[in-house]
Amino acid sequence: MLIVQKYGGTSVGSIERIKEVAKRVAKTAAAGNRVVVVVSAMSGETDKLIGLASQLSPNPSDREMDLLLSSGERITSALTAIAIQEQGHKAMALTGRQMGIITDKVHTRARIERITGTKAGKALDEGYVVVVAGFQGITGEDDVTTLGRGGSDLSAVAVAAALCADLCEIYTDVDGVYTADPRIVPDARKMERISHEEMLELASLGSKVLQTRSVEFAMKYNVPVVVRSSFNNNPGTLVTKEETDMEDVVVSGVAHDKNQAKITVMGVPDKPGLAAILFKGIADANILVDMIVQNVSSDAKSTDISFTVPRTDGRKALQLTMKIAASMGAKGAVMREDIAKISIVGVGMRTHSGVAARMFETLSEHGINIIMISTSEIKISCIIADKFTELAVRVLHDAFGPATAPAVSAARVKQTGGKSSSGKKK
Amino acid sequence: MLIVQKYGGTSVGSIERIKEVAKRVAKTAAAGNRVVVVVSAMSGETDKLIGLASQLSPNPSDREMDLLLSSGERITSALTAIAIQEQGHKAMALTGRQMGIITDKVHTRARIERITGTKAGKALDEGYVVVVAGFQGITGEDDVTTLGRGGSDLSAVAVAAALCADLCEIYTDVDGVYTADPRIVPDARKMERISHEEMLELASLGSKVLQTRSVEFAMKYNVPVVVRSSFNNNPGTLVTKEETDMEDVVVSGVAHDKNQAKITVMGVPDKPGLAAILFKGIADANILVDMIVQNVSSDAKSTDISFTVPRTDGRKALQLTMKIAASMGAKGAVMREDIAKISIVGVGMRTHSGVAARMFETLSEHGINIIMISTSEIKISCIIADKFTELAVRVLHDAFGPATAPAVSAARVKQTGGKSSSGKKK
Repeated sequence: MLIVQKYGGTSVGSIERIKEVAKRVAKTAAAGNRVVVVVSAMSGETDKLIGLASQLSPNPSDREMDLLLSSGERITSALTAIAIQEQGHKAMALTGRQMGIITDKVHTRARIERITGTKAGKALDEGYVVVVAGFQGITGEDDVTTLGRGGSDLSAVAVAAALCADLCEIYTDVDGVYTADPRIVPDARKMERISHEEMLELASLGSKVLQTRSVEFAMKYNVPVVVRSSFNNNPGTLVTKEETDMEDVVVSGVAHDKNQAKITVMGVPDKPGLAAILFKGIADANILVDMIVQNVSSDAKSTDISFTVPRTDGRKALQLTMKIAASMGAKGAVMREDIAKISIVGVGMRTHSGVAARMFETLSEHGINIIMISTSEIKISCIIADKFTELAVRVLHDAFGPATAPAVSAARVKQTGGKSSSGKKK
Repeated sequence: MLIVQKYGGTSVGSIERIKEVAKRVAKTAAAGNRVVVVVSAMSGETDKLIGLASQLSPNPSDREMDLLLSSGERITSALTAIAIQEQGHKAMALTGRQMGIITDKVHTRARIERITGTKAGKALDEGYVVVVAGFQGITGEDDVTTLGRGGSDLSAVAVAAALCADLCEIYTDVDGVYTADPRIVPDARKMERISHEEMLELASLGSKVLQTRSVEFAMKYNVPVVVRSSFNNNPGTLVTKEETDMEDVVVSGVAHDKNQAKITVMGVPDKPGLAAILFKGIADANILVDMIVQNVSSDAKSTDISFTVPRTDGRKALQLTMKIAASMGAKGAVMREDIAKISIVGVGMRTHSGVAARMFETLSEHGINIIMISTSEIKISCIIADKFTELAVRVLHDAFGPATAPAVSAARVKQTGGKSSSGKKK
């Protein structure tokens, strides 16, 4: 088998940890596999470099930041190769460029265009373990780029796709993907499998196990990805293409995100194009808007628009919104910060009705008021008061029930209620 | 003018220092010059990386060490470019590879084969200050190499040669090249000029102002080099090709080196080839032999061979020598570690007789016994007991006299005695 193993910052966070990684890699290679290792910077290293640059400039140039930050992964790749050699295996460290990871020219968040991988292929044929510096690539003009936060996941999946690897293992500090945060729900279970689509929704919901773009890449090129811990030998969670039996499970997981603020613009005149002006202004300030709801006001000539942003961007977004609101003749804007987003995710929702109703009912039974609602094909999200976050996660996890799931798919949350009788698989 | 400025580890040792460097570069550029900056790793950074690798392996692979160590200069180049941008000038950081520094494949001490410099030339034409990561290059097979300790000096001189720069300024933590160590000789003077040949002898004598290979390179390609301090605005010392008036000065400087150990092999049978076996064995262990003296023994059938090595390699060299001595039927080997090397250097020696005699006489007058002597065309070195080091430097500096030198060449040590009347320039 050709296996790509990606180790994150905490997995290579110290010399001792790098030695442990080397042992795991050597064991995988000794079992007869060809192995490509993709490494992140040692934890804390990237932040240290960002700190140095910020002492020099409030707004350092993206091109030079990429050169600076790519050094962290280069250092880890060299150290990891040395550690593997010390285990008695041939190992060769490659930078993103030497791996042939060609990207576009968008510094600090470049997109991978193609991977040549010539040097890696030759090294693998010669019996080397190849250790690739993650998070980085190079433009056609020979400039170093980085792939954005969590970009090493993307490096690993893309390298796996380019080399037609049999498996891409993402090693991190958690055992895999859970049905809910185990710190909140003690009987949350690790999933054996999850579909790419579900993983995408969970990743974008703040469950930081896998970077969103790496999931998209894995889905597009059908790369089998396993998320597992480098601190133990537990099997992890397989992220894979959707299989028919996955639809038996309506809700795969319950996610929450406390980094939310809600802004409401009141009395927006009912004229075309005003929403576009508002959200373009906010996007130009590099603030990510998540949910958007437009309420028809009692006064038919104006409307209210509410949206959520990361709480850390809240004040900035509010100031901007007030300015734009004034310019368009709206009545004003207010912000609410004591909120959280609760979501349930599952491909089975597509074929099961009544899931949303059951979610709202469950929250209501426990006195939790719903402030905003947003839905997609496989996800339902509600904004609630953040003091109810833990309660909401627990009651939804109970309602959609992993505790009662049969052993064969113990890792997934089965719908146990009777309200979803219209599913085609039933 | 096109000016190459190289800043060493202490000159870029902190964020504050990098800001100072950026100001100096910006000032040079604002004066209408095109500027290429070559930077070392921040002081301590290279040792930190070596320390990490040594925790993983007693003998890490050279190829991966080069990838590891080259990161230090990349980080400084990015930070320095950001700092220059903050001064309001366009700046672009380039790695050794992006500068097109092509080397041979000898990792950890590669030799520069050629410099393409295409990207740098284009950037200069577009008004950028170019900031090059020193100490590193790339092989024809796309592997990262480093140029050995002090290699950033070589990067700077080679880049200056490749770009036909008008001047190469080497910024360090001393004001320039002195006639002797000012900590020992209070009236030691900074030289205005020194010939490449003299600088070579001083560099190899442990006066660590300029790396030896960079001087050879400057001599070969006739690059004007100035050594000066990044901590003040003093003019520094110009290292230049020999000019005729330089021969008026017999002794340019007095150097000393306490990192010396002397090993004597006694009773070596008088057979051809034995010296070759001895010194090949020591060279194979990567120990640099400095002076070699063969004494004819009273017993005509055998001889004694003495040589010096860096004191830090002394024990290792002695053990090796004893083994080789036994195998060749010699009587044994002994080491003496309490020694130092004192040297006088000057191109004027070629045309002035009696210099050696005056040196020996001066040492003798002060009761300093000479243990070994070695001479070249422009240098005389003596091994003495190391307790006499400071005394010897002072009396030789007095004897060859910078204190009485005329103002026009105040920085150089004029011969003041009457023993050198045969010089052709007299």
